[in-house]
Amino acid sequence: MGVLSEGLTQILIPVAAFIGLGFALFQWFLVSKVKVSGGYGDYSGYKDRLINEGETEEGVDPLEVSIKCAEIQNAISVGATSFLFTEYRYLGIFTAVFGIVIFLFLGSVKGFSTESEPCTYNTGNICKPALANALFTTIAFFLGALTSVLSGFLGMKIATYANARTTLEARKGVGKAFITAFRSGAVMGFLLAANGLLVLWVSINLFKLYYGDDWEGLYESITGYGLGGSSMALFGRVGGGIYTKAADVGADLVGKVERNIPEDDPRNPAVIADNVGDNVGDIAGMGSDLFGSYAESSCAALFVASISSFGISHDFTAMSYPLIVSSMGIVVCLITTLFATDLFEIKRVSEIEPTLKRQLVISTVLMTAGIAMVTFFALPSEFTLFNFGTEMSVKNWHLFFCVAIGLWAGLAIGYTTEYYTSSAYSPVKDVADSCRTGAATNVIFGLALGYKSVIIPIFAIAIAIYVSFSLAAMYGISVSALGMLSTIATGLAIDAYGPISDNAGGIAEMAGMSHEIRERTDALDAAGNTTAAIGKGFAIGSAALVSLALFGAFVSRAGINTVDVLTPKVFIGLLVGAMLPYWFSAMTMKSVGSAALKMVEEVRRQFNTIPGLMEGRAKPDYATCVKISTDASLREMIPPGALVMLTPLIAGTFFGVETLAGVLAGSLVSGVQVAISASNTGGAWDNAKKYIEAKVLSLYQSLSSPFDFYTLICHFQAGGNEHAKSLGPKGSDAHKAAVIGDTIGDPLKDTSGPSLNILIKLMAVESLVFAPFFAAHGGLLFKLF
Amino acid sequence: MGVLSEGLTQILIPVAAFIGLGFALFQWFLVSKVKVSGGYGDYSGYKDRLINEGETEEGVDPLEVSIKCAEIQNAISVGATSFLFTEYRYLGIFTAVFGIVIFLFLGSVKGFSTESEPCTYNTGNICKPALANALFTTIAFFLGALTSVLSGFLGMKIATYANARTTLEARKGVGKAFITAFRSGAVMGFLLAANGLLVLWVSINLFKLYYGDDWEGLYESITGYGLGGSSMALFGRVGGGIYTKAADVGADLVGKVERNIPEDDPRNPAVIADNVGDNVGDIAGMGSDLFGSYAESSCAALFVASISSFGISHDFTAMSYPLIVSSMGIVVCLITTLFATDLFEIKRVSEIEPTLKRQLVISTVLMTAGIAMVTFFALPSEFTLFNFGTEMSVKNWHLFFCVAIGLWAGLAIGYTTEYYTSSAYSPVKDVADSCRTGAATNVIFGLALGYKSVIIPIFAIAIAIYVSFSLAAMYGISVSALGMLSTIATGLAIDAYGPISDNAGGIAEMAGMSHEIRERTDALDAAGNTTAAIGKGFAIGSAALVSLALFGAFVSRAGINTVDVLTPKVFIGLLVGAMLPYWFSAMTMKSVGSAALKMVEEVRRQFNTIPGLMEGRAKPDYATCVKISTDASLREMIPPGALVMLTPLIAGTFFGVETLAGVLAGSLVSGVQVAISASNTGGAWDNAKKYIEAKVLSLYQSLSSPFDFYTLICHFQAGGNEHAKSLGPKGSDAHKAAVIGDTIGDPLKDTSGPSLNILIKLMAVESLVFAPFFAAHGGLLFKLF
Repeated sequence: MGVLSEGLTQILIPVAAFIGLGFALFQWFLVSKVKVSGGYGDYSGYKDRLINEGETEEGVDPLEVSIKCAEIQNAISVGATSFLFTEYRYLGIFTAVFGIVIFLFLGSVKGFSTESEPCTYNTGNICKPALANALFTTIAFFLGALTSVLSGFLGMKIATYANARTTLEARKGVGKAFITAFRSGAVMGFLLAANGLLVLWVSINLFKLYYGDDWEGLYESITGYGLGGSSMALFGRVGGGIYTKAADVGADLVGKVERNIPEDDPRNPAVIADNVGDNVGDIAGMGSDLFGSYAESSCAALFVASISSFGISHDFTAMSYPLIVSSMGIVVCLITTLFATDLFEIKRVSEIEPTLKRQLVISTVLMTAGIAMVTFFALPSEFTLFNFGTEMSVKNWHLFFCVAIGLWAGLAIGYTTEYYTSSAYSPVKDVADSCRTGAATNVIFGLALGYKSVIIPIFAIAIAIYVSFSLAAMYGISVSALGMLSTIATGLAIDAYGPISDNAGGIAEMAGMSHEIRERTDALDAAGNTTAAIGKGFAIGSAALVSLALFGAFVSRAGINTVDVLTPKVFIGLLVGAMLPYWFSAMTMKSVGSAALKMVEEVRRQFNTIPGLMEGRAKPDYATCVKISTDASLREMIPPGALVMLTPLIAGTFFGVETLAGVLAGSLVSGVQVAISASNTGGAWDNAKKYIEAKVLSLYQSLSSPFDFYTLICHFQAGGNEHAKSLGPKGSDAHKAAVIGDTIGDPLKDTSGPSLNILIKLMAVESLVFAPFFAAHGGLLFKLF
Repeated sequence: MGVLSEGLTQILIPVAAFIGLGFALFQWFLVSKVKVSGGYGDYSGYKDRLINEGETEEGVDPLEVSIKCAEIQNAISVGATSFLFTEYRYLGIFTAVFGIVIFLFLGSVKGFSTESEPCTYNTGNICKPALANALFTTIAFFLGALTSVLSGFLGMKIATYANARTTLEARKGVGKAFITAFRSGAVMGFLLAANGLLVLWVSINLFKLYYGDDWEGLYESITGYGLGGSSMALFGRVGGGIYTKAADVGADLVGKVERNIPEDDPRNPAVIADNVGDNVGDIAGMGSDLFGSYAESSCAALFVASISSFGISHDFTAMSYPLIVSSMGIVVCLITTLFATDLFEIKRVSEIEPTLKRQLVISTVLMTAGIAMVTFFALPSEFTLFNFGTEMSVKNWHLFFCVAIGLWAGLAIGYTTEYYTSSAYSPVKDVADSCRTGAATNVIFGLALGYKSVIIPIFAIAIAIYVSFSLAAMYGISVSALGMLSTIATGLAIDAYGPISDNAGGIAEMAGMSHEIRERTDALDAAGNTTAAIGKGFAIGSAALVSLALFGAFVSRAGINTVDVLTPKVFIGLLVGAMLPYWFSAMTMKSVGSAALKMVEEVRRQFNTIPGLMEGRAKPDYATCVKISTDASLREMIPPGALVMLTPLIAGTFFGVETLAGVLAGSLVSGVQVAISASNTGGAWDNAKKYIEAKVLSLYQSLSSPFDFYTLICHFQAGGNEHAKSLGPKGSDAHKAAVIGDTIGDPLKDTSGPSLNILIKLMAVESLVFAPFFAAHGGLLFKLF
């Protein structure tokens, strides 16, 4: 047994969760101190704070601007809330139906018998009946779905609460705006991490009241939590992704390309839909996604642990190791956040990216120490794990390496992503340079960049897998995934920061604020593109590990000991599985494309038929565009969702567990590549465009005094900026080519790419949940012939 | 034993090969009857044939045109020959070095011992020493390399011989031009199929003189033939692909996009390089590629058979089953060709695609009967096969199904490819339609189309694998691959037809022939884009089967009985293997992009500095552009080539056979998807552009009399053509967007995509050849730790 007693564990986990919640609320309180005055609110805060700062812009009435900001924020918030509620109605029906499917499939394994059964692993003991497992799995599924939806919804709420506040703070400088955006991201990060942990802990303790000593059944049922979380995440990501990119692509194609008006110009009828989309896709979708990863890796680790010596000897503290790691993660991320918000202050644009990057390093270094502590306190010094039919003996420091290597692999992925998507390095500069010869070379270079960006992350994941697999079999993989996700609060904070800044820029433009403000928010946004790509890198890397862990758990539960590529059943599964990410991407890309075409027609129609729209004398009809995005996303999320949800059911029922195992392995190894390359290609195109717009130099000039140190650095960097200038400005041929690349990248980086990691995770967790059914009744087709 | 005696087999195989060679020469003779008069030749043929036909075009002196054609043809032929010779010099060095590597690695397995060893499978007998196998493998490698190079070179020769003849025949009508292009394709197809078969048959018989009864050693050595064939194919495809697409993209970016001059305009300095490229990339590269597939699938089948009961009971006829299937293929393709050239005549553009498609159906149907015949005559009614440690009993009709399902899967792939890349169906029309909203939607729709086009081919391959694997283990897979390739002569004929027509169009433009001629060659070319995509589909599909067969042979030879995904060594191999196609594509795409940028600069420089070039008064400097393409392709083919050649050596030596097995499986299942989607996306973009150029309707009008049946059909189809017209004509915004898509598709469909199937085959055959070395000395890294 480890040092930590069961009682202490039962106290520490909820305490960490409440600390996380408290910190999130405190950050929210700090953000709320920035007053936005709506047409309905009081103006006192605004008057108190802003006029005193002497930030009045020439020719623009600050009061009017502030009211406008509040109006826009309100419109975005109302739009996002209304979309999410509509989406959740659909998801509610799906959840109810799928819950019944789970209950019926799992219940049928033993013919709905209510009699207790002998345990599978804890031989000699008696476990609860399969029907109870079916019921509790269904309950866990509902809980997971609910928590996932809540995570997305709360994220959206804080993001729409923060965007106008970031805009208003941008008037005081980049630093203030950064803090507001970052704090808001942190609210979301901590809320999610703490909420996920708390619900899981409460569920386990409630389930234990019934299960008692039957830990096999208990943790088998808990896997439903991961399935619920990820299935909501899938629809959230896909639906939100189609919503946001249909609006974004549609708005850009007419606004930027045809009408030559700026991004987020209020005359563009699709502009509100575009900004709503950022919140429902990038924020709510991503929140559900990362929550899903977190829930699944915890469930995979718990399930594998339950059939190891922890489960058999009923060592609750060791059993809860995954939860304790996550608890430590919350504390570490809390300290890390203070480095960005309180210990240092950002004064210049050039400091934004390093500050965000530093967050990753700090959290990784601190967490490494944290893991060591947790490992030595919570785990017995030696124990046995189940490894596909055989048992292996493991020492506690083995597990330290498993978690740590996942954590550091995450950092490697983050850094690689930054290298390939930030305009500070040569890959994006090369892509920008290729715009000289037009859109075609831009696309060729961008695709090549995305393909190349896959290499290092794959090696990082492969090393993490090899080490943790060798040290602690599938349990090693699952805690390695948890290691990568242990700093989820920080990861989400810097990820959510991106869309908040993007929205802040949109609001500045729509409220008619000065170009300087817009340039500041654009600088925040450029860093946000990179951090969003990093966030996606984490999501994909952890998804690869999580899926492998779930895959291992599935194989254990299905009772097969080898997945031999040299058998035809497995190989065809592998081949077809590797094809699924393409099928899925084809659906989502086409959906965005078709919805964007409709959006383009509507926007064109409004420009052509509403008199005075182009001159700014008439208001566009925002609602129709919102409706197009809403309808498209709700309609189009069904086929890809069905593909992912039905594939394991069909493969398992008709072809059996071997083929399904092949499908899971195939979709995993192929999907990771497609996902990484898609999201990095998209991020690089976006930043290549921003690079050409060449705002960096002008910002340096506007911000730094002529003699300070940074001006010097600035001059050294001017070579790069001269390069950027030679390609620009906005409206040049090179810029037009870059805009085309950016538009193509939109569905790649915000719809297809990030949905793919859910595809691989979700198919794995679904297979895990249904494993007893497939093992009992699967492979119908082969049984018939 | 089967019905066929050894003596008869030994006669029938070379007879079939000589029939193929004779038929090829006869077709060449027919093509040569079209006289091209160069400045140095005699004009009699021209005078005899063309003036009599009353084909004089207004305002263009036919004699002058003909001389110009001859000059251009000569320039292309000289350029292609000179490039290939330069390339072959590099390849000669590589071959010599790699031959030594093979000899040293394989020789070292038993410490260069010259003593005979007990056989591995044919227990109780004595086999030749490992050193002899090393030597003969090296010799077979050289033979394979030589045959591959010869295949590519001869293909190029006939293609450059045929292009101007096709142009000249186009003056008499589409039908005549089609026959010339198709006959020339047939020359290449039959030459290659017959040559490959003959060299293999001769080698086996010569090797037998030394090996005598040691068939294990004999057929082990023969695998070197496949390695030689495919390694030349890799460099041919990559080098040729970079050459052709650097020139093509460079020429298009300045010519079509910036200067608004037509494709292949003689004022464009890159135009000769572009046309040379078609011959060295699409023709010579593809010839080597398909020869490689053919050689490898034969070698894989022969190797697997040698360790089955055929080998042990020394049944030469049954052993030679793969060669007999190929012999039958030559005869079937010969009959099939007559349907296109002699039994029917093409009178209208609308008949081109159906005629080419009919070739596929006819050859498949006839070949099915042929396979049945061959199977029942050549094979004993029952025999045993080796299946990873166990033996399985197989009946001869099982093998009929294996070969036949490969053949029909090929047809399914061909038809799917046609559906997704021909402008007659909705996918390409949708892509064309998306050009209304610009290049971005065109690219999004095109990528989605490519992803979607993967689905059916993958299911076809999966079914073929499942059936043939279940019926006859790895031997089933290898003969299934041979089945798909059995109609290679026809496949190559319709494939080579494409670039020949493309060149014919180029020559028509450069020689200043009338628009009508150009429209005819364009119509041939549009069908050629589809058939080229079909050819690539076959190449990829067969590569998937071949690689799996080679993979199986490798696993057998390396002495491992399972490749279990649930072991870390295998899984990391799988993951990294799935990444390799991306790494490889990143290299080749970037190479094309960079070379194209250089080409653009040179072309721009010439337009800016050579006075009178744009007005057609001065001649451009073609040679510099040829040099840029040559240098780029020779320099840039090395890194991707090294990646493919070194990966199996590094993985096998340092990580061992399990990891290598994972790498092979991963690259196979992932590479197939990337390859299919890349080549179909590219083909679709090309034809979407041609669709918008809307020549179809005008050709219908010019070709059909007002009252015939086809005019009626034409009117029914006019809906579609009206659609095309609404998007066009050349120079419209939609057309510009389509040109961007086409340019992006170039490296996808002609460089990355088709090289990927060589990547997966070559890594597999290389692993097979080096398997004894890896089994003896591999896995250094794991041995150390």
